[in-house]
Amino acid sequence: MLYSEVEFPVRYYETDQMGIVHHSNYIRYFETCRSKMMAENGYPVERCEEEGTLFPIVSIECRYLYPARMGDVLTVSAKVEKKPLAKFTFEQEVRNQRGEVCARGTVVVGFLDKKTGRPCRCPEGLASLFDE
Amino acid sequence: MLYSEVEFPVRYYETDQMGIVHHSNYIRYFETCRSKMMAENGYPVERCEEEGTLFPIVSIECRYLYPARMGDVLTVSAKVEKKPLAKFTFEQEVRNQRGEVCARGTVVVGFLDKKTGRPCRCPEGLASLFDE
Amino acid sequence: MLYSEVEFPVRYYETDQMGIVHHSNYIRYFETCRSKMMAENGYPVERCEEEGTLFPIVSIECRYLYPARMGDVLTVSAKVEKKPLAKFTFEQEVRNQRGEVCARGTVVVGFLDKKTGRPCRCPEGLASLFDE
Amino acid sequence: MLYSEVEFPVRYYETDQMGIVHHSNYIRYFETCRSKMMAENGYPVERCEEEGTLFPIVSIECRYLYPARMGDVLTVSAKVEKKPLAKFTFEQEVRNQRGEVCARGTVVVGFLDKKTGRPCRCPEGLASLFDE
Repeated sequence: MLYSEVEFPVRYYETDQMGIVHHSNYIRYFETCRSKMMAENGYPVERCEEEGTLFPIVSIECRYLYPARMGDVLTVSAKVEKKPLAKFTFEQEVRNQRGEVCARGTVVVGFLDKKTGRPCRCPEGLASLFDE
Repeated sequence: MLYSEVEFPVRYYETDQMGIVHHSNYIRYFETCRSKMMAENGYPVERCEEEGTLFPIVSIECRYLYPARMGDVLTVSAKVEKKPLAKFTFEQEVRNQRGEVCARGTVVVGFLDKKTGRPCRCPEGLASLFDE
Repeated sequence: MLYSEVEFPVRYYETDQMGIVHHSNYIRYFETCRSKMMAENGYPVERCEEEGTLFPIVSIECRYLYPARMGDVLTVSAKVEKKPLAKFTFEQEVRNQRGEVCARGTVVVGFLDKKTGRPCRCPEGLASLFDE
Repeated sequence: MLYSEVEFPVRYYETDQMGIVHHSNYIRYFETCRSKMMAENGYPVERCEEEGTLFPIVSIECRYLYPARMGDVLTVSAKVEKKPLAKFTFEQEVRNQRGEVCARGTVVVGFLDKKTGRPCRCPEGLASLFDE
């Protein structure tokens, strides 16, 4: 299993005229935490891309439970339980500074060979993190 | 049933370093079409908000089928089949100029009373559009 | 001289909690109109990039004169008066449906050779549009 | 004089298909640091807004000096040298982890009375920070 967290304050431009964080930003928060997870485990996204593997999003599902607001400090988490073969499945969550869950979601990410443009398997080193 | 479409070209800032439209933007495209549907039916979002009803997002689900790219002209659609009571369920789609479906999703939107901050029922006039 | 305009409604996600279009979006609106100008004149950005020329931003200057809001339909314009050599200078404007100028700015764009990563001159065909 | 800094990694969605951080995001980075400065000095933006003062942007000027990329950790700074009366003038900068200046700009922010919608003077407590 891999698990990562990242903490950051809400940015003003992320709010909308309802006075809360616009729902599309949670999708971006999820990504920010996945990037951190990749880097923490020695596979920064940008290096994987350079070495030939792209990570296209296959699907996203998100439930919005509690609005985040300007002034909040959010903790975003990402968890991968199963060893990825053709796909990565991330369980993701956004909590505020009081521990309230703002959003919870699942993101499925595929692997694409940059040269051929075709789906490929998870890079071996990345998959092997799950063997430990 | 309500159905609306909106057409627009991809904007450069919507692309990411994979060279495709970043996946979070489809969530925004979906919204852009919902806003158009509301306005076309006499209920522009901004007027509903002024009159006291907010439309918080309950959940989102999106499958990514084909990447959109700079130069593409996208058609985004929104369809509501059931009369909304406590929630609106929108079926949404993004197609490119060749008719390829780039993304398909479902967005559930609730109703919130601006004054009380509590969930409320669909404004009557909006619900009555489904009686015709 | 080159001149282009593009018209579009404000998108909900572009608003912020002040209830107006967030100031960073005007910078994006400017770009959207520059892209249209390039395409209208036979040089779509994405094709120029493919053929080896990138268009990095050198500088931006924008004065905010009147807030744009949800429900507004904006007209964005871009004007280039001088034949570009090492740089393109765009005069840009955003007006609302009542003709009020929301923002006015100047954007300077350079030319970069994609292979060498070094500044280059304006692609000849693009420059020659100003000879007519 | 007031001075603040904030450090954060580039987020993937901030990149564009040139493979660099899209230029509009520096405008957002600037804001993120201004918000931090306000909070650090006891005047979080959201509280000022609640208490009746809005901070509309008057003008922005930004020179782009060096591209930021995915993997970079940016330090954004904001400096106010003069006591604000009708306007705040922020000198802003974005540097990468090697100290290279990516962008440098000036942002002028006004004060607006939320109730009347008219320009007003800087809230007294905020102005008095410059008397120390």
